[in-house]
Amino acid sequence: MRLVKKCLPIRLWKATRLVYQRRKMSRRTFCTFNPKENKFNTERYACHTVEEVDQIIDSASSAYSVISSKSNHEINNLLCLIKENLRSIKGKISTVYCKESGLTKERFDTEFKRTIFQLELFSKHVIAPEYISTLEQAKNVNNKSLTKKKIGIGPVLVVGASNFPLAYSTIGGDSVAALAAKNPVIVKAHPFHVGTSSVVFGAIQDAMNTLNFPIGTFSHVVDDGYELGAHIANHSSVKAIGFTGSQNGGEAFLKIAGKRKFPIPVFAEMGSSNPVVLLESAFSEDRKILIDKITNSVCTDSGQFCTKPGLFFIPKNETDEFVGQLKQSIFSFRAEPMLHPNILKEFEKKTARLLETFGTKRFFRSRASIAPKYFPKKSVLHLASDSILEFPFLQEEIFGPHTSVFSYSNHEELIDILNGLNGQLTFSIFGSKEKDGPIIEQLISVGTQKAGRVILNDLPTGVEVSSAMQHGGPYPASSDSRYTAVGTDSIARFQRSVTFQDLSI
Amino acid sequence: MRLVKKCLPIRLWKATRLVYQRRKMSRRTFCTFNPKENKFNTERYACHTVEEVDQIIDSASSAYSVISSKSNHEINNLLCLIKENLRSIKGKISTVYCKESGLTKERFDTEFKRTIFQLELFSKHVIAPEYISTLEQAKNVNNKSLTKKKIGIGPVLVVGASNFPLAYSTIGGDSVAALAAKNPVIVKAHPFHVGTSSVVFGAIQDAMNTLNFPIGTFSHVVDDGYELGAHIANHSSVKAIGFTGSQNGGEAFLKIAGKRKFPIPVFAEMGSSNPVVLLESAFSEDRKILIDKITNSVCTDSGQFCTKPGLFFIPKNETDEFVGQLKQSIFSFRAEPMLHPNILKEFEKKTARLLETFGTKRFFRSRASIAPKYFPKKSVLHLASDSILEFPFLQEEIFGPHTSVFSYSNHEELIDILNGLNGQLTFSIFGSKEKDGPIIEQLISVGTQKAGRVILNDLPTGVEVSSAMQHGGPYPASSDSRYTAVGTDSIARFQRSVTFQDLSI
Repeated sequence: MRLVKKCLPIRLWKATRLVYQRRKMSRRTFCTFNPKENKFNTERYACHTVEEVDQIIDSASSAYSVISSKSNHEINNLLCLIKENLRSIKGKISTVYCKESGLTKERFDTEFKRTIFQLELFSKHVIAPEYISTLEQAKNVNNKSLTKKKIGIGPVLVVGASNFPLAYSTIGGDSVAALAAKNPVIVKAHPFHVGTSSVVFGAIQDAMNTLNFPIGTFSHVVDDGYELGAHIANHSSVKAIGFTGSQNGGEAFLKIAGKRKFPIPVFAEMGSSNPVVLLESAFSEDRKILIDKITNSVCTDSGQFCTKPGLFFIPKNETDEFVGQLKQSIFSFRAEPMLHPNILKEFEKKTARLLETFGTKRFFRSRASIAPKYFPKKSVLHLASDSILEFPFLQEEIFGPHTSVFSYSNHEELIDILNGLNGQLTFSIFGSKEKDGPIIEQLISVGTQKAGRVILNDLPTGVEVSSAMQHGGPYPASSDSRYTAVGTDSIARFQRSVTFQDLSI
Repeated sequence: MRLVKKCLPIRLWKATRLVYQRRKMSRRTFCTFNPKENKFNTERYACHTVEEVDQIIDSASSAYSVISSKSNHEINNLLCLIKENLRSIKGKISTVYCKESGLTKERFDTEFKRTIFQLELFSKHVIAPEYISTLEQAKNVNNKSLTKKKIGIGPVLVVGASNFPLAYSTIGGDSVAALAAKNPVIVKAHPFHVGTSSVVFGAIQDAMNTLNFPIGTFSHVVDDGYELGAHIANHSSVKAIGFTGSQNGGEAFLKIAGKRKFPIPVFAEMGSSNPVVLLESAFSEDRKILIDKITNSVCTDSGQFCTKPGLFFIPKNETDEFVGQLKQSIFSFRAEPMLHPNILKEFEKKTARLLETFGTKRFFRSRASIAPKYFPKKSVLHLASDSILEFPFLQEEIFGPHTSVFSYSNHEELIDILNGLNGQLTFSIFGSKEKDGPIIEQLISVGTQKAGRVILNDLPTGVEVSSAMQHGGPYPASSDSRYTAVGTDSIARFQRSVTFQDLSI
């Protein structure tokens, strides 16, 4: 399995290669990986060939006009039936989900619920009068009758995230939004949870068949490498891309899409460090509650959330006590594996750089414990806030159970440093107007410029699926800050408008 | 003047270079060109330096937060006062407009009226309750109070078109939309109508001063080359680009924007050939009226419109008569110059290629007449429709008084050819459901896929400024088919959303 060959025990990798070689003339297959047990799962998944993918794209292309002519009630029916089908195989999904992701049964339940809720929300939304009324506007101007209608943009490639095998993957936000906009969807299954993805796809296929949607309405492409994803992104019949993942991954798709003869829009939700500013008054509240909240936000599911808070800014005089307590709390949080060996490797690389650069007096790491060796070691970095100016890489997202704490001397310095931050998904402020004064307004203003969501007295993890949610921010948080990846407004990413002049259709 | 050096009489170009050399140590200056008289205008315009442009961008950046906090009524006031100021100097604008563009006084009046109407429409729109209600939505979800607000994206670079020195230039659609969204605007003045642009900018400056808008609200950058435009597009404080012009020009900005460390959105309205399909029934109507309408649409203002119909598809059995009449009508249309020597040169290059490739039996050109030699020669190409498959360059926009007529043998062939067309701004159909039958529905379906506007029984020139207008289509008609360059919806190009969580602001 090419994706993992460098991060797995040589023995395992060799075994996988052997299977390749034996089957050289036939279809390539691969296994997923169980990060909790540090071994491959036994089921094998077959990669599609380029020829098959071309057929899949052709089917999607043909399906487009059929789906375009479906009523919103028919789209509602499809989303509802997918939801029901998923519910009926919840147990089956749960088993493979946990085995492939290393995530807990409790986490599965939460994410499954979110996925179901999302399908429900969008299914209701597409038939809601408030939505329907936005799909068409008619005017008579200078004796011309103009009717502007929103239509689906065309077949959409969806490349989901490994950290949400359900809610941001096969039938996650991008797919549901693309379907709601009446587009065919081609999912490039995530190789590390291709089993989960296949089971979910089965539920979608059943719904399509039952409701007589054409086969190209929703397709599922399996590949353990990058070739097929790139091939689809390059195909002239594909009209948009939805991506969730790393900045490198997102930029790879942006590059492909931009270099096409006719470029297409990509919405890539990428990296964010989600700064959190603690003002003086935050420390007059119950310290234990604050530390617990932060620990949960940094460590839950090994900190593998796009909204994990990665940068804390705290007043200098609170530093020693706060960092001491936070370290203790974070290091004693339950041990959990990372999603797959690549993510673990990246986490280890980035934290190793912090250790190398700042040494053990600034970089603190949890010691070997009863947890298996292949689980990530949680870590905390503590520096003065102006270090960010000297070491810009400190701004980069570190995906996993790490956070960096920066102490600031005064508000002027704080604002200066924050003004230099890159685009973010979120920006959180702990404080109060009454106790901290006008700095709150200044911080809200900086946060508004830097991020897609500004939060008062709460941590950024937990993204509500709502029409009032903005999930996406200035680059590199997302590739286009004008769109959201979460909530019903995310449909707009996959719609364009056409004006019909003097046509009574 | 670098832009024109290759297309002007050597004598004139040398004279200009001389001025450069003499002023080598001082600011570079240049003149605009009078295409009607084929000579430079006498007024000289000074180019900005890179240092000045950096200051301009800094001012725009500082102005952003001030403009953001302006009320919609204050934006309304600004747009209204710009409108009044323009009205009060209409005569002054008219003189320089005609001298720099070669366009007629009548055309000036039409375009001036359109520009004023646009300012009026947007000024009313920003205070209309229907618009205000789209700017904010609030929800309580799981005990979180979420308020999502639309804000301006940040300083916008506007690069206007030479063919609309008012309505798509300095205070044209892009600038008005960017201001309406509460963004600072930096206009890179078009070098061929920099005089017009400067006068218009004066009216804007007066309005800004009167209403105490910061100096960075609207800036005007002068350069006779591409360097300063590229410099602005590359600047980290600039957050979006609005461009109207050629595909090459648009793609140059897309490339710059995509290669920035943090890419920014570009809306480029680029090339379109605006196919027009004539069905059998169209020929049973008054032939003279049809030919006159087409001639006007192809030839008015030397065919220099982004919606000029460049591809006609007609039934084979109507061909000879139709092409004969169309040629005669087009060739006898009044002679008019082109906007500037570069556009003329490009037109001559593209039509020369047609002559070379297809010869005088297929390519027809108006003969030398009493019109000056430096006016463009109108032309018509006539081929069988399958030639487009063999010579894909036939699809490319030819900006100027040329159109290509393709005869089709049957509807099946017609649909096949149309399915192979690139993205278009418009797609027109002449025919009737009653007389031509189901082919009409098929054509509407193809048009919907290919274009941003589908028109029945009319020609594409004349883009109404309305909320129901879509001006923009699949690539290469525009760089992002999800947006429009005309009408109040064009504001969305320059807005992003921020969700405020648990903030009562």
